[in-house]
Order: sequence, then structure tokens, then C-alpha cells
Amino acid sequence: MHRSLESDAAGRSIVQFPPARDPATVVAGRRRSATAASAGPAGRREHAGDERQTNPPMTTCAATLIDGNLAAEEIKEELRARVERLAASGVRPGLGTILVGDDPGSRSYVRGKHRDCADVGIESIRRELPADSTQKEVLRVVRELNEDPACSGFIVQLPLPPHMDMRVVLQAIDPDKDADGLHPVNLGRLVLDQPGTVPCTPQGILELLRRNEVPITGAQFCVIGCGTTVGRPLGLMLTRVTEHATVTMCHEATVDVAAHTRVADVVIAAAGVAHLVKPYWVKPGATVLSVGITRTVEGILGDVHPDVEGVAGKWTRATGGVGPMTRAMLLRNVVDLAERRAEQDRPSRSHADAVEHAG
Amino acid sequence: MHRSLESDAAGRSIVQFPPARDPATVVAGRRRSATAASAGPAGRREHAGDERQTNPPMTTCAATLIDGNLAAEEIKEELRARVERLAASGVRPGLGTILVGDDPGSRSYVRGKHRDCADVGIESIRRELPADSTQKEVLRVVRELNEDPACSGFIVQLPLPPHMDMRVVLQAIDPDKDADGLHPVNLGRLVLDQPGTVPCTPQGILELLRRNEVPITGAQFCVIGCGTTVGRPLGLMLTRVTEHATVTMCHEATVDVAAHTRVADVVIAAAGVAHLVKPYWVKPGATVLSVGITRTVEGILGDVHPDVEGVAGKWTRATGGVGPMTRAMLLRNVVDLAERRAEQDRPSRSHADAVEHAG
Repeated sequence: MHRSLESDAAGRSIVQFPPARDPATVVAGRRRSATAASAGPAGRREHAGDERQTNPPMTTCAATLIDGNLAAEEIKEELRARVERLAASGVRPGLGTILVGDDPGSRSYVRGKHRDCADVGIESIRRELPADSTQKEVLRVVRELNEDPACSGFIVQLPLPPHMDMRVVLQAIDPDKDADGLHPVNLGRLVLDQPGTVPCTPQGILELLRRNEVPITGAQFCVIGCGTTVGRPLGLMLTRVTEHATVTMCHEATVDVAAHTRVADVVIAAAGVAHLVKPYWVKPGATVLSVGITRTVEGILGDVHPDVEGVAGKWTRATGGVGPMTRAMLLRNVVDLAERRAEQDRPSRSHADAVEHAG
Repeated sequence: MHRSLESDAAGRSIVQFPPARDPATVVAGRRRSATAASAGPAGRREHAGDERQTNPPMTTCAATLIDGNLAAEEIKEELRARVERLAASGVRPGLGTILVGDDPGSRSYVRGKHRDCADVGIESIRRELPADSTQKEVLRVVRELNEDPACSGFIVQLPLPPHMDMRVVLQAIDPDKDADGLHPVNLGRLVLDQPGTVPCTPQGILELLRRNEVPITGAQFCVIGCGTTVGRPLGLMLTRVTEHATVTMCHEATVDVAAHTRVADVVIAAAGVAHLVKPYWVKPGATVLSVGITRTVEGILGDVHPDVEGVAGKWTRATGGVGPMTRAMLLRNVVDLAERRAEQDRPSRSHADAVEHAG
């Protein structure tokens, strides 16, 4: 077991090498003045020999590595404590997984999720169906987990066999048991800035920034990639009143992505294009997170070129950054859902009922 | 009746004066080169006497006025034809409104909506409840309209009396009868880029741009204001694969909004701050739409300063621009819903059922 496979929330494959392979050498980087560098749309390359440059000439200076494995471990430790508190009141959180068919990748992702669950004391509820099951049979299992009080939240592992309509299956999940945060109701709540489950990867990105003291409110973000599991929900989360970041959403139709990254305090690369973000795309001192991953014969390549380390203030590598956080956030969603349910069950009935009765 | 009152989709008041008051003088403006002006973050003020300026010095040149009343009339004409086609197959679209209490503003907005309906042949279904109704009574009417086949779509006029939970009432609306497009399920579908009803104001903005030949794909947009009825859904609509605009979302915590407007091809001002967008904030030749409105003793002030007319390529005034489009889009949503339902009822049963049976 030299590598742990994982998937993003939609089940697309993201391979993460364990930190042991590359022992997260966290170098305390000199944080350069972001203001001095923000004078124009010129990257580091231009700045190096630029007369207008008022700071002393830059020497090679490694950015601080943001360690996703470390943050994920901290979060798991916090979750263990919350699971213990729940146990004291007789509640055990449970994550359900529905796996249809024999895809080895999917099987491996599901196994990884249950391993993570065991690690923090979340119960595993596994449902497996043969590849030739009917959609009705899958929907029956979805309904079963919707009603199972032992199941705090669950996921349907994607992809589903081609004879099924993924949308119909995913929408059948009770939004209050949606562990992935990708049910339309939960995404709609996010647009409306109402409480709900939020998707794991953007949630992990925000948590990683907070734990590494990267300012969010008022900061200029550049999000590259407008996918439904990362970019689109991330843009919504960053522009909530609680975060209030200024966000530019870029994608393959953006004429000059570099013009936007160069003025950004934080760059989130979730495009799935290997080494897309070059060093000269980055404002010196900026934070750069690599989310997208491309598998090549030479191994895993992230959306951020490794030389960005010489320009950024803080950064993540292709692996050991956002990936472990995505996995930790799934666990946190399950514990959140279990706590919310325990809270609702405690006084009288659910809040919605209480309001309805008051009406 | 010298003015028509209307509200945005959430029922917040926006007052629109009729075009008669200010007879939409559409001046064909010289479209200045956008590229020449995008060299730096300098606005028009700096450019005027700037040595680096390569274009001939600018003279006062009025931007082309984007006429929302004209576009709304065109859309109504199209809707009349669609309503006739529906009538030929025995279907008449119907808009339902639920009004609780006696607020004169709300009453006036609802009246306006039904006047618009009559104008294109949509049936009006009015439900009025006294202010001291219980929430249960309102929910009963919501369920009644959910089940009424004569009602293609409906809205609950806001605000509701304070003893009711707006969220509970709005979420009780069948998402496939949500005429406003503000139900969490429809907003979630928008995040996922799935078909659904989209909110009226952002939909009206896109329609206004398309009908006035403002390029969207690959264009740089600056959206000011991240509210749930305009800014947030607009950002999602603009970054869909079908639109693929590059979008910067600004708001009150944005450090330097002008730095973003100055590089934008299209500025959408939905902040609710009178005359926020100054002429020197605008890249010469850019398109500037005013959405937010502030009521003052001197009258209605939009988010865009009137002098922007001298810099922009195309623009809307505070009134007669986006407002009439919002109203037209509500009608279009109702006709869309009626057509979709007629389509579903035609062959066998609904698509969802068909898929379920196939599974």
C-alpha cells in the first residue's frame, strides 16, 4: 500500500501520494511585500530586473509549504473528540456508501473512505449492488439509507453504470443526508447563503487557508476552473458575507488567465491542466493552491508548476495539499450532520416542524 | 398612473419610471477601441491627458443607450406568439400570485404582474390572504397552486408577515412551478448547469446584452454586488459553458472596485449604491448596466453615474433598462413552464417517470 487512491466528490479520480514519499519539508519562507509587487500586471520575471522595484533584489526563496496532511490530521483529531461527545449522548455518526458494479477504482475509493471513518470512530454502512442492478433497485437502497437512523449521511459512488440516470439517483438522496454537499438543494442553499452541507473540496480549500493564516476577507482570489465540484461552489463560498473575498472566475475561454493570477493574493488552480500556473503568473508572496491533477507516465502533475515555489509566499504541491483535506471534509460533513440531527431530536422536534406548528 | 412600481424577484422595491418620462433617446455612439484603453489600470481621467495615449484625444461622445423597454416589448411580442401556439393545443399558461396582508407596495407589484400577464395572454390566478393568516393557511394555498393544473407557475409576494418563516413557505413551492427561479432546487440546478428556472433579473441582463449584440463569451465582466437575487446567480449564469465569460465578483469588502471595472468589457452594477460607478471607473467603449436603485428626494438614482454616458460604448440608465426586462422574464418563465409541462404531458408521462420506469 504505497499509495492511497482517492476521488474528488464526484468520484473523479485524483491520486494522492502519501506524505512519506515526499516528507513535507516546511520551509519558513520570507514573505515579500505584496503591495510593492502589485503595482502593475508584471510577474516576477519582469520585476527581477525592474527599475521600479523598490524592494531589494529577490534571491531564491522557497515558499512556505501548506501541508494538507498535517491540517487533515488536526481536523481528524478534532473530529475524534466530537465523535466521543456524541457517543456520550448515545449517538454514533455513520457514513453510508452505495457502490454499484465492480470498477476497481471506485471500490478502492470507497474502501479509503471507510478507512478514514474507522480512523475517527464513524460507523461504516456499506451497500454494494451488482453492475446489472436496475435503477429502481439503486433507488430502493437510497430510500433505505434516507430512512436509516444509523446513517448520518451517505454518498453514491460515481460513476454509475451507463443505463442509470445519475441525476435521478443523486436527487433521490435526502438533502439532509447528503454527505457530499452536491445535492441541488444544498447547492441552492449555498447560493442563498443558507445553512446546508457544502462540497468537500472547496470546503477543504477554505479550511486550509484559514489554518495557514491566509487572509480571505477583502483578498483578491483568482479561481481557475469552473467545474461543479470545485470552482463553482468555491466562488459562491468565497463571496458569502462571512468570507467576502473578491473573486475572479477564470476558465478555458478566459483570454489572458495570467493577467488575473498576477494581481491575485490567492490563486486556486482547479483546471486539470498540468503545470498551467507558471512562476511568472504569480504575484510574489501570493498563496497558490494546486487542486487539479493530471496523470502522466512520469507520475502525477498538478496545475501549478513546481517552480512557483520560488515566487509564492505559501503554496501546496500537487499532492499532500488539498487532497487530504477533501477526504477530511467528508468526515466532517458526516459529524456535522450527526450533531445537527442529535440537536433536532433533543428538545421537541425539528426546527422546521416547530416553525410550522408556530404558524 | 405616472409611474409603475415593481419589485425585484424577492419583493424588494424597485421603482421604474415609464419610458414616456424620458423618451429613450438612442444615440448611436462611436465605439472606441477597447484594446487601446486596456493598457493599464488607468481610467478615463488619466487617459485624457496621458502621453501614452495613442488614440486621438476623446471628445464628448454619447454611448448607445440600451433600451430595456424596447427589448421587453420584443419579448412580449414573442411570448404572445408562443401563448397562441399553446392555445392551439388547448393549453393556457397561468401565473399564480399569493399575497398575504395589505401592504400597498406589495399590492401594487402584484397588480403590475397581472397587468403584464393580460398583455401577453397569460391567465391570472390571484390568491389573497389576510395579514393575520397562519403559516399553515399560506402553506395550504401553496399546495393548492402546486396541484392546480391551470397554474403553470406562481410566486409568493414578499415580504410575508413577520410571524411566518419565509424560507419554509418558499421551499414549499414545487420547484417546477417556481416562476421566480429562486427556489433552492432551481438555484442548485444552476450551480450544476442543469436545466431549471433561472432568476428574472440576471436572465433579463443576459437577454439585454444578447439583443444588443454585446459579446459575452470570453469577455471580461465585473459584477458589483453579490446579492442572492442578482449578483450570485448572475455570476453562475455568466460562467456556464454556454456563456463562458470571465467574471470578477465585487462587493462592499472589495478593496478597489475601480481597478476591476477599469479592465472590464462589461460592468453590471447591482450594489444599491447611488452613482457608485463613475466615468473614470469605466474602460472607454465598455458596456455598463445599472441594476441597483436608490430612492432619494430628488428621485430615483441608479448605481451608475449619468456621466458614464460619455465614456461607455453602450449603457443603460437607472430606469428603462434592466427593470422592464425583469418583468418580461417573469412572463417568459411562466410560458417556459407551461410549454415544458405541455411537452411532458404529450407523449406518455414526465421524463423523470420515463427514466424511472426504464431503470
